Amino acid sequence: MTVIGLGLMGRALAGAFLRAGHPTTVWNRTTSKADQLVAEGARLAPTVADALGAGSLTIICVTDYQAVYELLGASDGELDGKTLINLTSGDSTQAREAAQWAGQRGAHYLDGAIMAIPSAIGTAEAVILHSGPRPDFEAHRSTLDALGTVTYLGADQGLASLYDVAGLAMMWSVLNAWLQGTALLRTAGVDAATYAPFARQIAATVAEWLPGYAEQIDSGSFPAEVSALETDARAMAHLIEESETVGVNTELPKLFKSMADRSIAAGHGGEQYPVLIEEFSRPRKN
Amino acid sequence: MTVIGLGLMGRALAGAFLRAGHPTTVWNRTTSKADQLVAEGARLAPTVADALGAGSLTIICVTDYQAVYELLGASDGELDGKTLINLTSGDSTQAREAAQWAGQRGAHYLDGAIMAIPSAIGTAEAVILHSGPRPDFEAHRSTLDALGTVTYLGADQGLASLYDVAGLAMMWSVLNAWLQGTALLRTAGVDAATYAPFARQIAATVAEWLPGYAEQIDSGSFPAEVSALETDARAMAHLIEESETVGVNTELPKLFKSMADRSIAAGHGGEQYPVLIEEFSRPRKN
Ligand SMILES: NC(=O)c1ccc[n+]([C@@H]2O[C@H](COP(=O)([O-])OP(=O)(O)OC[C@H]3O[C@@H](n4cnc5c(N)ncnc54)[C@H](OP(=O)(O)O)[C@@H]3O)[C@@H](O)[C@H]2O)c1
Ligand SMILES: NC(=O)c1ccc[n+]([C@@H]2O[C@H](COP(=O)([O-])OP(=O)(O)OC[C@H]3O[C@@H](n4cnc5c(N)ncnc54)[C@H](OP(=O)(O)O)[C@@H]3O)[C@@H](O)[C@H]2O)c1
Repeated sequence: MTVIGLGLMGRALAGAFLRAGHPTTVWNRTTSKADQLVAEGARLAPTVADALGAGSLTIICVTDYQAVYELLGASDGELDGKTLINLTSGDSTQAREAAQWAGQRGAHYLDGAIMAIPSAIGTAEAVILHSGPRPDFEAHRSTLDALGTVTYLGADQGLASLYDVAGLAMMWSVLNAWLQGTALLRTAGVDAATYAPFARQIAATVAEWLPGYAEQIDSGSFPAEVSALETDARAMAHLIEESETVGVNTELPKLFKSMADRSIAAGHGGEQYPVLIEEFSRPRKN
Repeated sequence: MTVIGLGLMGRALAGAFLRAGHPTTVWNRTTSKADQLVAEGARLAPTVADALGAGSLTIICVTDYQAVYELLGASDGELDGKTLINLTSGDSTQAREAAQWAGQRGAHYLDGAIMAIPSAIGTAEAVILHSGPRPDFEAHRSTLDALGTVTYLGADQGLASLYDVAGLAMMWSVLNAWLQGTALLRTAGVDAATYAPFARQIAATVAEWLPGYAEQIDSGSFPAEVSALETDARAMAHLIEESETVGVNTELPKLFKSMADRSIAAGHGGEQYPVLIEEFSRPRKN
């Protein structure tokens, strides 16, 4: 198999394939970045065309989609019948466009996203998302397993990118809420280490609610089984007030409340929290 | 023991004590709300003074702190030597003021917060936070255990209220991030039930990082062991762009980025995410 692009991430990917015993061909614009991999048994291809021709599977991981087109465009006759997995970061539209571009050249195309840092590649901690035709994924799954926790999301090539940013949004949200709580508690002399287990417990508990709440969204019906949105909004006012009183930041609490208030103004105060999907699903008006 | 205030929550509290076999005296402004509890074995006190005098421990749970003062103010001679646990929602300043007020009347005072709905009271799911002098808590802990998962936070009476709102902030954050992700994925035809397990997994994973990240905050040193804040900011730009492209709300992504950008402008781009504690710990300037 072939890895094109030997930046920090590409080198980690190629290294993991080599360690798993897969014969690996590599190519990079700056040739010297292949030195260590060659010492570990990789074959350095002299051209992109040679790299593409070396086997049936090529993984590309470069800075952006522009670089993908620049690199592959000159040798695109070589793509016919090959499988191209693009692990370059981009958005769902770029992924779908790249799938079309590759399809026009006779290639099977999967788009991926790497939810890991280079040092985690090759361990179970590294989550690598894939989207595109399932048979193309299944044909190479056992090879891909060398990279970490390899996940297939569905046929739409835009999915890997969407899941990736959605997962990051969850990451930043948990971290931000923890920081908000830590800031609040530090005003009472509680250190971050003392507060963290409480935050961890709440995050883990609420995470368990999500599959149940998802049913409300899919059915489009939001009965207030646990509590009504207007009860949440009152408690949000309380969080804002507490944050103001002790002198910490209020931007996140105010954003919570402004979205809830808009939903209440739209008549949803008596429904349950997931009814906010309507606000999250459209740009803010005005 | 005594329960004052028999709204939705007060009735649930008194009911749990009765079911646990504790002789329970109750009082409420609107007497009829005691009927069911009396049928279950509660004693209805004719006056607040009588209720306070019935035993050594009184729990009060009414609308707000104003109601607490109105109710107890007229009979405050009865507080001497008694323990008062106030489970009424309020902020940390109100809790500390109430502790002082009760102390001046010779009472032991604990402030609490109920992280549960009435129907969960009496089960392990109901988390009841307490703050105030530890001996006063320990003296009544075995009685309080009837209410659910009873937690002691520390001597500062403001802690229960602070932990309560901090926990709510985590709850809304996890839910909002899940809604953002659900909105993104629905544009690609992925239903909420399909996406929810992914969101759950990310939230649970990130929750596990918090104790480690807390060490950075307590030491005031934020080396970029996993990634640098400017890498996060670039990915945030990506989330904003993806949200705009598919037409979902961008307020939460933009808030993430604006806080990160300010920290980067303050010179922290090469440090790790928890350095944002500095932004969360102060009101937004401008
Ligand atoms: N590093 C991470 O933690 C991480 C995590 C998740 C996802 N990713 C994603 O993985 C991808 C690669 O990241 P990285 O960390 O490996 O970046 P990097 O270290 O900056 O490497 C960039 C790579 O792209 C190549 N490149 C850029 N423009 C090119 C062009 N016009 N023609 C030919 N080659 C070009 C570079 O070649 P030269 O060596 O010749 O410059 C290099 O191989 C990015 O999309 C990134 O978002 C990275
Ligand atoms: N319900 C929940 O899910 C929940 C969850 C967590 C925390 N809490 C907190 O628990 C507390 C009570 O909530 P709740 O749900 O029980 O509210 P509720 O059903 O509205 O009951 C309010 C209680 O306060 C009494 N009250 C209000 N003003 C009074 C006054 N001036 N003098 C005497 N009594 C007065 C009411 O007496 P009357 O019956 O005579 O009106 C009633 O007993 C609130 O602080 C709430 O934030 C509630």
